[in-house]
Amino acid sequence: MTTAAICTIGDEILIGQIVDTNSSHIARELNKLGIKVDRMTSISDRLEDIEGHLSALLDSFDIVIVTGGLGPTKDDVTKTALMRLSSSDSWKMNNEQLEVVKRVLTVRGIELSEININQALVPSKCEVIVNRLGTAPCIVTQVGNSRLYNLPGVPFEALSLLPDIMQDIRSHFSLEHIEHKTITTFGIPESMLAAKIASWEDSLPCDMKLAYLPNALNGVKLRLSIYGAGENGMKRIDEEFAKILPLLADAVYGEGEDTLTIAIARILMANGKTIGVAESCTGGRIASLFTANAGSSKYFIGSVTSYSNEVKKSLLNVSDEILSNYGAVSSECAKAMALGAKKALGCDFALSTTGIAGPDGGSDEKPVGTVWVAVAYKDNNLGKDVAETIRFNFSSNRATNIERFAANALNFLRKKLIEQLHPKL
Amino acid sequence: MTTAAICTIGDEILIGQIVDTNSSHIARELNKLGIKVDRMTSISDRLEDIEGHLSALLDSFDIVIVTGGLGPTKDDVTKTALMRLSSSDSWKMNNEQLEVVKRVLTVRGIELSEININQALVPSKCEVIVNRLGTAPCIVTQVGNSRLYNLPGVPFEALSLLPDIMQDIRSHFSLEHIEHKTITTFGIPESMLAAKIASWEDSLPCDMKLAYLPNALNGVKLRLSIYGAGENGMKRIDEEFAKILPLLADAVYGEGEDTLTIAIARILMANGKTIGVAESCTGGRIASLFTANAGSSKYFIGSVTSYSNEVKKSLLNVSDEILSNYGAVSSECAKAMALGAKKALGCDFALSTTGIAGPDGGSDEKPVGTVWVAVAYKDNNLGKDVAETIRFNFSSNRATNIERFAANALNFLRKKLIEQLHPKL
Repeated sequence: MTTAAICTIGDEILIGQIVDTNSSHIARELNKLGIKVDRMTSISDRLEDIEGHLSALLDSFDIVIVTGGLGPTKDDVTKTALMRLSSSDSWKMNNEQLEVVKRVLTVRGIELSEININQALVPSKCEVIVNRLGTAPCIVTQVGNSRLYNLPGVPFEALSLLPDIMQDIRSHFSLEHIEHKTITTFGIPESMLAAKIASWEDSLPCDMKLAYLPNALNGVKLRLSIYGAGENGMKRIDEEFAKILPLLADAVYGEGEDTLTIAIARILMANGKTIGVAESCTGGRIASLFTANAGSSKYFIGSVTSYSNEVKKSLLNVSDEILSNYGAVSSECAKAMALGAKKALGCDFALSTTGIAGPDGGSDEKPVGTVWVAVAYKDNNLGKDVAETIRFNFSSNRATNIERFAANALNFLRKKLIEQLHPKL
Repeated sequence: MTTAAICTIGDEILIGQIVDTNSSHIARELNKLGIKVDRMTSISDRLEDIEGHLSALLDSFDIVIVTGGLGPTKDDVTKTALMRLSSSDSWKMNNEQLEVVKRVLTVRGIELSEININQALVPSKCEVIVNRLGTAPCIVTQVGNSRLYNLPGVPFEALSLLPDIMQDIRSHFSLEHIEHKTITTFGIPESMLAAKIASWEDSLPCDMKLAYLPNALNGVKLRLSIYGAGENGMKRIDEEFAKILPLLADAVYGEGEDTLTIAIARILMANGKTIGVAESCTGGRIASLFTANAGSSKYFIGSVTSYSNEVKKSLLNVSDEILSNYGAVSSECAKAMALGAKKALGCDFALSTTGIAGPDGGSDEKPVGTVWVAVAYKDNNLGKDVAETIRFNFSSNRATNIERFAANALNFLRKKLIEQLHPKL
């Protein structure tokens, strides 16, 4: 099986100044080709580190893709390492890249310098994949049976080079076929999920592998991968997943990159319905999760963040009685907020949250991590608006409590939408 | 010099399903102790990979911090590797962690299973740093002169363990004394900032080091570090920073971990004033940035996310004339939204945003990335509410546009607060 390693060069990653996102993109592209990424590393831009580390990776892996260590101020070290790794004895100018360098600098209004011209110079035995968006090319070095790709670190430049690199890989390696499918679940903790499907997991064919991908905001994703299968690989994956869907019931909300708000949007749009939100403890987070999706104005009307009781009263019409008799963190207040939001925003469904994110404000009766959630909608039998509520309790820090409040509120909304709208899932 | 490596375990990172953010946080904490992170790696959760790779890292580095590979469904492999690396011959139960396991599961309403109980089991020769927020403890293994820390991969659990881990590191390694101070700036691009303070930077004493820490949401942080200095280290850092503060003027908004909303909160609370928000294109993001801060109810009243024009009219009293004559993305609409929010929410200052985050909805006149921001407040001379507006243009993807809209709106608000309230900064 063809194996790959991904490496980033640069102190900015090692000191934690920036988070490396290139490696994740590259890994996904390699995965699609059925290439297993077995190692990711980050190293400093010292010559000895680069040369030693890259040659070690080339000894162990068929494909090594490197980002960073190229650029007007950094070129020299990495290129010197490549000079040695490729046993080149001279530099050659890549005129195609030199043309891009000139064009890019003109656009940026920077005058051409020796340093910039040198960016198009590569070791004589290396190949070049031209970077059309920046000044540093992708330098390709064949070392024995392994192939080394050095990309600039700027994410949009690195990503733009990936199609050409994947094409080069296809033409140089005979690749095993691999397919993945991910189903997204919410509401069953990872350990209970594992217990539920344990016997199924144990009985998976040996060419299939299951991965649990838990995420505070979007639940647990289950990814099933099949190695070396031909045409019917995806069919076999679907058949395996079909066996557990009944066990997971409505915990399954989508596939692949789906999020709870995307799953909710799908149901709303299929039924021509709209949603509005009234947030207390989640403080705008739920609204921002909806509006993060392009085109959300089709179904998301708006929200009220009623952080103060005054706003609960003035904009959401929550009564003084409810606030004084039950308090702001109560089933009654959550209901009143949802009903008030449905009216004030003029939406078909309204979701509300009221709770205690912490660190302060908790009590024995209502500890930090308590949240009441309500969903309001028109009950067609009763011919009037009704609201249903649920209570959740968590025990995390403020930031994570807010994430969990939002996620579990959205999942409660999703279940109510399924109840009320009976979408084909 | 004490060296460190950071390693993540888990296929979810190697296949690019999730981006590793833990390593970056850990690197920053080690950096503060003056420990250089020389290597970051990601490996699969196969036993042979874990055991072989970790023992290789322990040969080369004094400190190895590992995240992932622990969790109800993953424990076994990593712990088996630790069993061997620590040459332990049996398992021991950590009762303190077991209590946390029971508490966490009770709060989450999950019944205690064998799997969960086993999470508190560690190899007999390993030490434990209790994880108070989750079920998997931090397992500490001394191997020769090197120390290995295995943390759960869930970010909020991993981060919550870092203070105890750094304390353990301090007590086991003799570290050079290092002090840092960070000042936070917004509104001057990194390259211009560098040019402004270039001569100052060049003249820094050789025991001081400056780092630029740029961040889309909170601007550019400047971190000055002093190595090996005694008592007066921080005094000398302050003296150096004092030299550039006049150059940076009101671009400087705080220190250390300050964010724009924290800087704004400080001004509001010092003056007993409150803030409310009306968001269109930022869709709740600004409200969520305010409410992310503990105690924000002291100054944050609430917000309206007026995603639809109907809500702009009904809750913010934006007139049909403005919407039809100028459109929702206009200086006039931003002003009306801010004035409407101030009235509807009953706050002293109101911030509004209206723009086009993209990818669709742009035009030649108002391209994607255009945003109008307004701040409303009572003008005491005129004796009535007024609103001031500003336009920004960006050219990123939807997510980044929303972040930049929010950040620049908050910075505009901060400057207006300084103008109106003249806080002592």
